[in-house]
Amino acid sequence: MKQLPAAISRLSTELARLPGVGERSALRLAFFLLKAGTARSEALAHSLLELHENVRFCDVCQHLSSAELCEICIDPSRDRDLVCIVEGVPDLLAIERTREFKGTYHVLHGVLSPLRGVGPEDLNLSALVERIDKTTPHEVIVATPVSVEGEATATYICRLIAREDLLITRIASGVPQGAELEFIDQATLSRALRARSTL
Amino acid sequence: MKQLPAAISRLSTELARLPGVGERSALRLAFFLLKAGTARSEALAHSLLELHENVRFCDVCQHLSSAELCEICIDPSRDRDLVCIVEGVPDLLAIERTREFKGTYHVLHGVLSPLRGVGPEDLNLSALVERIDKTTPHEVIVATPVSVEGEATATYICRLIAREDLLITRIASGVPQGAELEFIDQATLSRALRARSTL
Repeated sequence: MKQLPAAISRLSTELARLPGVGERSALRLAFFLLKAGTARSEALAHSLLELHENVRFCDVCQHLSSAELCEICIDPSRDRDLVCIVEGVPDLLAIERTREFKGTYHVLHGVLSPLRGVGPEDLNLSALVERIDKTTPHEVIVATPVSVEGEATATYICRLIAREDLLITRIASGVPQGAELEFIDQATLSRALRARSTL
Repeated sequence: MKQLPAAISRLSTELARLPGVGERSALRLAFFLLKAGTARSEALAHSLLELHENVRFCDVCQHLSSAELCEICIDPSRDRDLVCIVEGVPDLLAIERTREFKGTYHVLHGVLSPLRGVGPEDLNLSALVERIDKTTPHEVIVATPVSVEGEATATYICRLIAREDLLITRIASGVPQGAELEFIDQATLSRALRARSTL
């Protein structure tokens, strides 16, 4: 875009590097920010600069935190005997939104993926073993995704942390709430049939 | 999101204020930026801060510019006898992409819209009249949108700048390239019929 001032081109190039933002929408965002005035852009810029300074990982569960321990790990009402293993922070937030779970978490920051070169050493696993040995929780829920990689990771973790006095569980897989059987994929429906329960 | 560090919440709130970015995608962008490392966020922050410092409007045509005159107005190869009036900078860029137009522009930064309280005094019109009086171009192309507001603006401008020796033209309206007549709206098709030309 020779016809545009360099400052706009630079901003829209940076915006276009964000996931899900194409060149056109980046330019539209840049125009929007230009019109919206200096204060808006400054607020966004400051929150960007602040992001990496003030965010770290919780020493216990590796959730995002602003201190050594995250909000969940310092919460005395949380059940430390129950640990839920998740792939990432968005999954943790999704479980929190259910308001169903009162235990603590362990965030792997990934799943095993030989194709993408992610091995056990790339996940937050040695800390998990250490944590289980130290705190001896009653139950560990493996809530990795219900995908090939998520299942492989679950199996791997199950073997890794198996102890005589530890209950290891996996989240249920089946037909989601409100779904029409007609439109459910074959694999999910097979699973739902196999994991049927008595009424 | 009590469970997230304040720095992430603040960034995702700022991102969610951008047009087309919902709360979920704002959070996803914030996670992406956190993972992408400090350099990426800093580059974006700097281009945001730089935006308002280094961008101004061209003294002649009100296009975005980094100097008194924009890249197009200082380009000696551009025909100053031909002025194209557009609603905004995105329209100017769209016309530039055709590589069809070698004249200069005049950016209104809006169209007349009584409903949204935009009157003639809110558009860049007095500068247009002044410019036409001073530079006496041969032709003015009115390329405001083909919408109710765009047409009203075109009519208004036509009356405003009418001079004996000035040719005022309007961009053609009709069935766009590649379109099936079947799916074209009635108004466009009526226009295309009325504005038919001999083969």
